[in-house]
Formats: sequence, structure tokens, C-alpha cells
Amino acid sequence: MASGSEFGSILRLTTWGESHGAGIGAVLDGFPAGMDLSAEDIQKYLDRRKPGQSEISTPRSEADRVEIWSGVFDGKTTGTPISLLIRNTSQRSRDYGNLKDCFRPGHADYTYYSKYGFRDYRGGGRSSARETAGRVAAGAIAAKFLRELGVEICAFTKAIGPVQIDEKRFDKGLITKTKTCMPDAEADGQAMDFLKKCMDEKDSAGGVIECVITGVPAGIGDPVFDKLDARIAQALMSIGAVKAVEIGDGVNAALSNGSSNNDLFYMENEEVKKRTNHAGGILGGISDGSPIICRAHVKPTPSIFREQRTVDENGNERTLLIKGRHDPVVVPRAVVVVECMCALTVLDAMLSNMTSRADSVRSFYNRRKQ
Amino acid sequence: MASGSEFGSILRLTTWGESHGAGIGAVLDGFPAGMDLSAEDIQKYLDRRKPGQSEISTPRSEADRVEIWSGVFDGKTTGTPISLLIRNTSQRSRDYGNLKDCFRPGHADYTYYSKYGFRDYRGGGRSSARETAGRVAAGAIAAKFLRELGVEICAFTKAIGPVQIDEKRFDKGLITKTKTCMPDAEADGQAMDFLKKCMDEKDSAGGVIECVITGVPAGIGDPVFDKLDARIAQALMSIGAVKAVEIGDGVNAALSNGSSNNDLFYMENEEVKKRTNHAGGILGGISDGSPIICRAHVKPTPSIFREQRTVDENGNERTLLIKGRHDPVVVPRAVVVVECMCALTVLDAMLSNMTSRADSVRSFYNRRKQ
Amino acid sequence: MASGSEFGSILRLTTWGESHGAGIGAVLDGFPAGMDLSAEDIQKYLDRRKPGQSEISTPRSEADRVEIWSGVFDGKTTGTPISLLIRNTSQRSRDYGNLKDCFRPGHADYTYYSKYGFRDYRGGGRSSARETAGRVAAGAIAAKFLRELGVEICAFTKAIGPVQIDEKRFDKGLITKTKTCMPDAEADGQAMDFLKKCMDEKDSAGGVIECVITGVPAGIGDPVFDKLDARIAQALMSIGAVKAVEIGDGVNAALSNGSSNNDLFYMENEEVKKRTNHAGGILGGISDGSPIICRAHVKPTPSIFREQRTVDENGNERTLLIKGRHDPVVVPRAVVVVECMCALTVLDAMLSNMTSRADSVRSFYNRRKQ
Amino acid sequence: MASGSEFGSILRLTTWGESHGAGIGAVLDGFPAGMDLSAEDIQKYLDRRKPGQSEISTPRSEADRVEIWSGVFDGKTTGTPISLLIRNTSQRSRDYGNLKDCFRPGHADYTYYSKYGFRDYRGGGRSSARETAGRVAAGAIAAKFLRELGVEICAFTKAIGPVQIDEKRFDKGLITKTKTCMPDAEADGQAMDFLKKCMDEKDSAGGVIECVITGVPAGIGDPVFDKLDARIAQALMSIGAVKAVEIGDGVNAALSNGSSNNDLFYMENEEVKKRTNHAGGILGGISDGSPIICRAHVKPTPSIFREQRTVDENGNERTLLIKGRHDPVVVPRAVVVVECMCALTVLDAMLSNMTSRADSVRSFYNRRKQ
Repeated sequence: MASGSEFGSILRLTTWGESHGAGIGAVLDGFPAGMDLSAEDIQKYLDRRKPGQSEISTPRSEADRVEIWSGVFDGKTTGTPISLLIRNTSQRSRDYGNLKDCFRPGHADYTYYSKYGFRDYRGGGRSSARETAGRVAAGAIAAKFLRELGVEICAFTKAIGPVQIDEKRFDKGLITKTKTCMPDAEADGQAMDFLKKCMDEKDSAGGVIECVITGVPAGIGDPVFDKLDARIAQALMSIGAVKAVEIGDGVNAALSNGSSNNDLFYMENEEVKKRTNHAGGILGGISDGSPIICRAHVKPTPSIFREQRTVDENGNERTLLIKGRHDPVVVPRAVVVVECMCALTVLDAMLSNMTSRADSVRSFYNRRKQ
Repeated sequence: MASGSEFGSILRLTTWGESHGAGIGAVLDGFPAGMDLSAEDIQKYLDRRKPGQSEISTPRSEADRVEIWSGVFDGKTTGTPISLLIRNTSQRSRDYGNLKDCFRPGHADYTYYSKYGFRDYRGGGRSSARETAGRVAAGAIAAKFLRELGVEICAFTKAIGPVQIDEKRFDKGLITKTKTCMPDAEADGQAMDFLKKCMDEKDSAGGVIECVITGVPAGIGDPVFDKLDARIAQALMSIGAVKAVEIGDGVNAALSNGSSNNDLFYMENEEVKKRTNHAGGILGGISDGSPIICRAHVKPTPSIFREQRTVDENGNERTLLIKGRHDPVVVPRAVVVVECMCALTVLDAMLSNMTSRADSVRSFYNRRKQ
Repeated sequence: MASGSEFGSILRLTTWGESHGAGIGAVLDGFPAGMDLSAEDIQKYLDRRKPGQSEISTPRSEADRVEIWSGVFDGKTTGTPISLLIRNTSQRSRDYGNLKDCFRPGHADYTYYSKYGFRDYRGGGRSSARETAGRVAAGAIAAKFLRELGVEICAFTKAIGPVQIDEKRFDKGLITKTKTCMPDAEADGQAMDFLKKCMDEKDSAGGVIECVITGVPAGIGDPVFDKLDARIAQALMSIGAVKAVEIGDGVNAALSNGSSNNDLFYMENEEVKKRTNHAGGILGGISDGSPIICRAHVKPTPSIFREQRTVDENGNERTLLIKGRHDPVVVPRAVVVVECMCALTVLDAMLSNMTSRADSVRSFYNRRKQ
Repeated sequence: MASGSEFGSILRLTTWGESHGAGIGAVLDGFPAGMDLSAEDIQKYLDRRKPGQSEISTPRSEADRVEIWSGVFDGKTTGTPISLLIRNTSQRSRDYGNLKDCFRPGHADYTYYSKYGFRDYRGGGRSSARETAGRVAAGAIAAKFLRELGVEICAFTKAIGPVQIDEKRFDKGLITKTKTCMPDAEADGQAMDFLKKCMDEKDSAGGVIECVITGVPAGIGDPVFDKLDARIAQALMSIGAVKAVEIGDGVNAALSNGSSNNDLFYMENEEVKKRTNHAGGILGGISDGSPIICRAHVKPTPSIFREQRTVDENGNERTLLIKGRHDPVVVPRAVVVVECMCALTVLDAMLSNMTSRADSVRSFYNRRKQ
């Protein structure tokens, strides 16, 4: 869609809201009727994204409470649009004097100004990472339904700067316990040390988020342009700071040979299985029943507390010193955003898939008649 | 869109056709009226994708002649759908006996079968790389118009297996001359040696394609889900063998610090410029006027001429030996596909951008009145 | 879109909310940046739709105050989604006992129940005419911009039951003054008498709304499926009680001959004009510069205060007596809804039209460069 | 979609082609896999639209043979795009001298010229009624599948000029036998007399097409903007000469009272039924299980063989005398177009409806697992 704030084909998400406006919202249309849904189901996900939870997160302390304004009746989804609202409560009424007409390096100030001839300079406006709160609220609903369908989505921090997790120490339970969202306590400790050093140097860091989606049956995704991996790529690259997306072996696949990269099929309990999963669960854009594996590479937070040279709206060169509240790394808070974007993408593809066979359509309508 | 074979928002591409059907086609709707267009403008691009041009390309010798069936009158586009047809001429009427019900490793046979309960087993049907001919035909038209708008798109082979080009030897003129589409004769020689070794070992290789888009003004792309990089990510990941997409510094951005990754703005000839381009020309999903840089990582060709273990539609384990015509590496022929997908994506974003400001709309309609 | 609550192609409206939920909302995406916009601009339109303004309008007294939650900064649209909220304040917490599981004749109770297996029985939920408040709020914004582009949209009541206005007495100023929204005081008086008789008989009435759109330049609309008249037809038929849509001479065109129905072209002040306007300003789905004329035929309010036979969710036949607050005719309050749906449709078509010619695109980007 | 030549949400039709180009085509994407399909299934429908079959049809004798270029394998649909081609064989290479730069009254010449600054003047180009051949080819496929789902669609001529059919003489078998496609031999005779008189007077006539769709279960259609009747309205109004669309009682509904217009529910064989069907099978935009009834009002053919005053591209007033081949009434040939547009609309809504309930989605994926 030309307008930019909509996502999905059957399951349609529209988000709205600016960092320092009245609130952030999401409208989720096309969600099936009759699923139990409470604000608490959503709140759990928002709490994982919430700022102010550790020394590596901005001290801006938004409550980020979600309100369901429509689409749920008697505790169940009604099939009509689910409107979600998260009020902004902590916008400081401070003086934006030196930022107001200045283009922060690494941010969208200049590009929004170029596009619209005008911009909401308060905290980035629509381009703020705060926009992802709406994605998380909607994604939480999708994730809940996916669990009912047997699909689990698990994202985690794979690396921060040079510190990578060790797969051998993988402990899923740690993801929501460590401040870095790493599933590896040792790596978490190293990453925290690294981040403190960054902060001491008034600098910031990037990292990598991996997401593993299990339980998706073979056959999900559409050919050609709406391949499941193409949709995931759009979904993840649309998250503010993401600069690369990989599926399965990703960049390493390009370095391997066909003989080692091909995943061989075999039979197990009358099911088709693959001996390896270099493909990351997707062949020809359609799921193969193996876990779907994707990664998002996140750039360092552009807001650093050093003086930076830049220009302003009047074409003057300026020296900028950013103050305020900014995470030295956005990776931990973006983990749940990745998870939610994957949930929205996979559920949409699963809904779309229900009409792929004439016999499914026939049996759906024949059952209804009886 | 749920159906999969459509791309774009204002500039809409629909492709159709199977590897061994009657032909491959593309319908390009939403293209502005009044641009000069001949079949030859398109043919030049198709010729770059054409098989059978060197020892590292399948000897299948399709003529791949494009025919324009609608949307062009008196040598000019009419504003209505441009229908393009490329006949399949070289499908051998051979016996598919051993492939017919067998799932080739690394291919979409099993996933299409899972989705549709049924598939066109001849050469992969719709999942064949031959499908990209339609993208190239349509992309050639977009690329032509982009040149008129001052936008140049240049894709090339950056790496094949372990062989990378040396930026210092970059010679654009070589891209269409080397068999690998590398802009570096020395790397090309090494890559050809590497590929011959692969072929001797009945194996295949992957590689990396880079695309540089220059001349895009600042302000192109849409916020949130339709960020320009998100659309490019979908566009490139939707090409059959692509397993990773990077923008700008890509995976390396995740390893850097804010102080080095931020591109500082300065003024030059009254224009806003950036001293570096780690961002790859896109900030907050919108172009910043610098060259847009993206990369697609391509997996090794899954069709190798070794025996591979697999299963068939009846759930029997089998040993498969693929014969026939297959490129040992798809990278060189995919270079023009990457270029064309970028062209379609960027032109669509530029068309979409024309309505972003109220004053542009006002002046458009005021001019009309006079 | 499959989900139903979205409208438009470039200018995208998503609405949400139920009659007796917390509120009604609209998100308008794709609106150009830089237009002055205040809540008051929107409120004027909502006030025309507001219930409780006369004896022929439900006494439910909603304040229907619009709140702008995003997309406007410093009094100007920002180009990002405009989120609009209208709180429901007057839902009575009454006992829905006898309506709860009963299908009201002429309403959507049974069809929503059939679709979703479940429904919000309070006041029709999403199927309530209250849903149109979101359309009006968004349409008011489109109408404002259209006026800046020289386009005026004027809808009015053409008939209520058997009472039709007399074109010779047409007085535009009366539309917002008469209770029926008729531009003819005499017909208004007759219609009020007719409606009082209906109310005395515990019955309801239908009517006809006409909309005249002036100032649309020739060339607006798209070929084939997105013809301007086809979009208007969808727009108007999507309003709850509308059962027929006409363009120009409409049903009478089918009774005429080509020699009388054809509008002959002539030249006036170097402009192409038509001597008549049987076509209603649209030829081949594209505007011809004449006033665009359309009509919506509205069925009688299905809520009547007589006993009606019906069935309930358990398959029991029942006698139903509806109480509560219901307009005897919805036409007067639907006039502004028709106007707003036309505004959204026409502005969307005008935005879409900006990319129809290659030379417009070229000059847009050439101007930018200088 | 902004581009105009696409229709549908899950079932996506794209058409292309001009009256005097190489051919007319349609690409139908999103059609479920596994339905038997042959060219003959489609040809039967095209033959009903074919010109040159009687004295009231243009003598242009197109063979109108459909060719299936993709999406069907081994006689079954594959789930991927079905590409359909109908070659133009009868375009006369005549001199368009006097039409070339002249705007024919009642045609789209002037509006296309205004939009695109340029047009294919040969036979109307894309605006020709010949464009509907692609709709019929695609609609035939939808209609076939609908029959398998128990849905029958029957369109017929209800009126030509002042001659209306008598419902009491309704004989379905006559629809494909009478030259007017009227299901009433007596009315057919009167209509033929009327048309001959029109032709003698070098004039043309309009008429009304009714379509009755039976077997659609209750619950089909989407709320708000994508109401089933709103989609039908767009579908029918997008057919070239249609100027009004009615659902159920249509324009007469506006004249009735709630007490007579409401259809009362009752139980029959444990099913919810309605005693009347004023609503035309749709309540709140969603089917109620009764026959869906809609009507399209068609204007007289604008090509008449009298001298008409008009203007040309250079702004000169001119007298135009149209020669060539033109139906005196388009109604009979448009009957199958109406039927096909209804088929595409209803099947799309039925596919969309499969995801409306969470329990349907759960049982679909649970069945798959077992």
C-alpha cells in the first residue's frame, strides 16, 4: 500500500501515532472471531518492550498500558477490527530548541523533512522506535492464536557488538530474564560489560536478533513475490534500525556448495523430514515443516552523547550535542518486536493458505451445509 | 496480496507462467502514459538473463524474445496494462519419469506439493527460476523510465563462493562482458576457475550480488511498513535462491559503534550531503540522496549431478540422480533480476511519493486548470 | 481487502468501533502533508450527522466530539496516519434481554451471527449506522482539501417516501437548515408531515440522496475495475441502508435512446464542454469535467415499533417488539455520509491520477532537482 | 488498486488488452488448486458474449477462442496464476481518418485523452467493450467452481427500452435461446421489434439486466466497506455502459415502509428462512441465505449512425458520422458479463469468509496434522 502504515494481506495491521503525540495505536482487522482475548494477553508482550527496565534502557518510564477499544466482546474477538491504544504519558515538555531544526545523524530527520517538507521534530515523531509498540500489541494477539494452532515463536539476542551467544549454552528461560535478552548467561555478562564500556565512551552498539518459529506445517507461504521469506524480510527490515535480514544459513549459504547446503529429505513416522535445516525451514518461499529461522541485524543506536557535526533546515552546518534518554543498544527491546512481526507474518500466511486447495474449499462449504 | 504473483503499490506487476508451459508473462499496470517503448528496450535486459551464453550457464537455449501484447500504441506507453509475453521454445518433451513424483533436495517440489496437494513437476513449474524472465521484462521498462528521471541502477556480481571482487579494480564496463558479471577481470578469472572445479566435482556454488542505485532524490520511500529498504528486502528475498539481504553496511553495521556508523551531514553547493554512506542511502526507510546500496546473498544451485537421498510423493525413500541442464551458479544470470527488482521498487516508491505534500497536489491541479 | 474495514487506494481509510463499545474511530493514511487541520474542521461535519437534533432523529444524544490523536503537528497534517476518535458517551446500560439472542428483521443480526458464530448484540455492534461517524470524520478532511483544489461536494435529500423535491425550488442554503436536509422548503414540509404519519403508525420511511460534485477536472478515475463511477457505487452501497446507486440519468438512461442520451461536445472559451449531462460527469469511468452526479436510494429504517415475527439464535420463532431510540428515516443523517464517501473517493482518484502521465512525473522530479 | 485493471481480494483478476491490439487477456491469481479445467469450460461463456450472432449484434466476427497459457496442468488448476488469451483476429486495417482525433459523444475518447494526454483511437482501445472478454473468461472459471460449491448464477435481460419481461412467463431455458437473452418469448419478440425500429431510425437502446444468485450460504460478505452488495455494485458499475445498480427491491425500497420492506424470519426444516426477499439476499452487507438479486441498468449504445456534433483534439467543432460495426443495444451481450462479474465477486467473498472464525482455522490446521 502506498501509504506505508499497513501490513498484511488477510490479517491487516494499521498503526498510527507519534513519539510525543497523545498515544500510539494499532488497528488489527481480519482477525478471526471467537478467540479469548484480554488486555493482559497483550500487556505481557508490551512489558517486554517497555523502556526503563535496566541500566541499558532509556529511563523514559512509559507505563505502556494497552487499552482495547473495539473488536472484543464478552472476552472474545468479534471478527471486526481490534483497536488498541497505548497512551503516551511521559513526554517531557522540554525545550527542543537545539534539535528542532537540526538533522540528527543516523536518524530520519532529514529524510522526513525531504519527503514532507515539514516534520514533527519531537522525539522523531512517527519515525521513533516508539512506533513499534503498536506492532507489539497487535503481534501479541497473533502470537496467542498461533500458540493455539501449535506454532511457537521464540526470538532472542544472538549478538551484541562482538559478543555472541554460544549455542551450546542456549537456555530459553534466560531470554526474558537477562537484561540483554540473551539465552546464555555468560554471553549476557560479557555483553553487559561491553555495553557499559560503550556508555562510558558515550557511544552505542548494534547486534543480532534471531527468531525460531516451530510448528508451522509444510505448505505455508505464497509463490513468487509473497514468498514467506520475502514477507519476513519486509517485516523485519521495516523495523527501524534493521540493516540486514537472513533466512536459515543466510550469508553463509552464499559461501557453501550445493552438496553441503542441500537439506536431504527422509521419512520418520510417516512424515517427510529433513536431515539438516540450512534452508531455515523455507524452500521456494513456502514452509517445509522444519523450524523457520531468521535473523535481523541491528545497527548501533544513532543517538550518542558526543558532539556530532550536522546541518540544519536552513542549510547551516552545526555542531549537535544530543541529550535526553536513549538506549545504548536497541537490540534487547527489539527482540519482542521481531517476535511480533514474525507472528503477524506467519499467521497472515496461514490464513491465506486456507484457500489454496479446491478440496479444502469444497469440504469447508459442504460441512457448513450439514 | 494473498495470491502471491503481484508486486508493487502504484506500479503493479503481475507475472504468470511455468518453466515448461507455453510461456512466461508479465502484466505491468499503473505505468505512466507517453514514454517511448519498443520491444528492443526490453530485449536488451532479457538477453542478459538468457541461458546458454557460456560454459557456466545451462545449455537450454531459449530465444527469450519478448512480445508486447498491449499497453503500447504508436511506440508510446498508453497508461493501460502493458502485457509482455516470452514463449517457451526449448522445453524438451523428455521423460520426467524419475523426477515426476520425487522431491528434489533444495527445491520447492515438496513445499508446493504440501501446499497445493498437486504440482507441475516439469522443471519446477511456477517455482522455476525461469519465472524471473517476467520480472526482467517488466523491470526493463521501469529502468528505462528511471533513467529519464536521472536514476541509474547498476547490479554486479560481488562474490562467487570464496572469490570476491576487489573494489579498487572496479570497472563497470566489465559487468556485461565477464561471464560472471564481475566488474573485475582478475576476480572473474579466479571465479571461473573455482566454478570449473565445482563442475568437475558435480557440485555448485553461491555468491553475492550488489546493486547500487544513484540519482534517487532524498525523500523517497514510505514510513513504517513500506520503508524503501523493507520493500527492497521483500523484492530481493522474493528471488528464488536469495537467503539474505543487506542494506548499506548490512551485517557489519551490527558490529560497529554509533560514532563510526553514523553518517555526518554537511553542506556542499547548497545541498545536504553525507560524509560517509554506511546507511546505504536510506534513513528511517526513506532515501537520503546518497547512493542506495543493497546486496543479495544467493545460495548454491540445488540441482547437482551427484546422487542424493530423498523421498517421493508416496513416502518412499529414494536415491535421486538429477540430469538435464542446470547452471552451476545462478549468480551471473540473477544480476539483471536484482537490477530489475530494484527498478520496479524504486519507481513505485517515486510514483507513490508524488502525493506526499499538499502543496505538490495543489500545484499539480492548479497548473492543469491554466 | 479481505477484512472489510478499509477503503481507498492511495488515500486509505480504516475504521473501527461498535455502537455500544468505548468509541468509534478512523485512521486516515496517505493524506498529503502540510494542510491546515483542526478538530473544528471535522466537527462541523460530525455535527450534521449527530443524532438528537429533531423529532425525526433518535433522541440518543451523543456529543460526538472528535479528537485528533495523531498525524497533525503545529496545526498541519504531517503526511502520516491521522487517527480520529469519537467516544461513545450515551450507551444506556439497559437490559438487552429480549434482543440479545433475537434476530431483528431487516438488520444484520442474523447475518453477522452466521458469519462469526457470535456477535455483539448491543445496538448492532459493528453493523450499527453509528459506524458511519468514522467515515464522516475522515471524509471531512478529504472535503477540506478538495475545496482547496476547487472541488465542491454537495449532497441533499432528494426524496423521502413519495415526497420529492422540485428542482425549480432548489435552494442550497436550505440543506443544512431543513430537518429533512431537503433544499426545498415546501417539499420539506410535506416530507415532515409524511414522516409524522409514519411515526404515528409506528412505521418508517426511506428516501433518496443526491450528490453533486463540481470542479473535478476531466481525466479523473481509472479504467476498467476502478472506474470513478464503480468506486462511487462501492462507496455509496457500502453505507448501511443503501439499496441502489445511480450515476447521471441512472435507471432512466436504460429507457432512453442513444440520440437523446449522448451528451454532445462543443467548445466554450477554449474548453471542451457538453451541452447536456445525462452521463453525470463520467464517461468510460473517467470524469469529463461536468458536474458528477450520483444518487443513493435508502431503504426504510428496519427498526419499527410494531410487533414483528422473527426467530432467535436457538431456532425458536418469536415475537419481537423493539424499543429504544431509532430514526423513522435515516436519510437526513445519511446526507453528510454520502457527501463524505464521495469526498474520500474523489480525492483518492485525484491523488492516483497524478502519476498517469510520464511527462508529469518527469516534470515533478525535474522541478525538485532545481 | 490505483492502476485500475485489477479486481478482487483473494481471488485476483488482472485484465489487459485493447480492442484493436493483438489480443485481450486475463490473469486469474489466487484460484484454488485441483479443480478440473479445460478451455471448453471457458469457451461456453465466451460464446455467449461473442459478436456477430444475430441481427442485433455487431457483424464483427471474432472467433474469440480462449487459450490457457498457464496455471493448469494435467487438466487441473495448479493454484498459480491462470493466464488466458483471446486473440483479436478481425480488426480491420481501415482508415480511422475521421475518428482519429475526434471525440465521439457518449464514449471515453475525451476522458482518456484528458487523463493520458494521448490515446489508442482504434475502436476505443482499452475502453472498448471488448475488454469484457477477459472478465468473461475469468468469470467462467469462478462460475464453474461455484457450481461445485452449490452456487448457481443466472443473469438475463429484464428489459430493453420500454419492453419488460413478464415474471409469470419466466422460462430460464430461453435465456440462451432468445436473441435478446430474455427468458420470455413474448417480450423477446416485442423487444426485437423495438430494436429494429431503433436501427431503422439509426438510433440505439438501453435496458436492464437482472442476476439471481442461489445457493450462497448465510454469512458471506465482509462488514463496512467490503459489504457483498458494495462489491457487487463496484463489479457491475465497472461494466462500461452501466449507469445504475440495484440490490433486491433497489429504488423501490426507498419508496416503501419498514413494515412492508422488512423480511420476517421464520424456521423451516431447522433452517432460518425469510418470508419475503425485499433485501435481495443481503443484510448489513452479508448474505442471509436467500437468493441474491441484483440489477444493472445499461445505457443505450453511444455509437449511432446519425450525424453528431462534437469536437476534436485540436479544439475544433466538428460533425461526426460514425461508420463501422456496432450493436444497437449492448444488453444481450452484457448478460454473461454481469453473470461473470457476480461469479468473481461471490467466489472471492466465499474464499475470504473461510478465515472468519477462529474455530474454523483451528479445525483446518488440526485436521492437517492428523
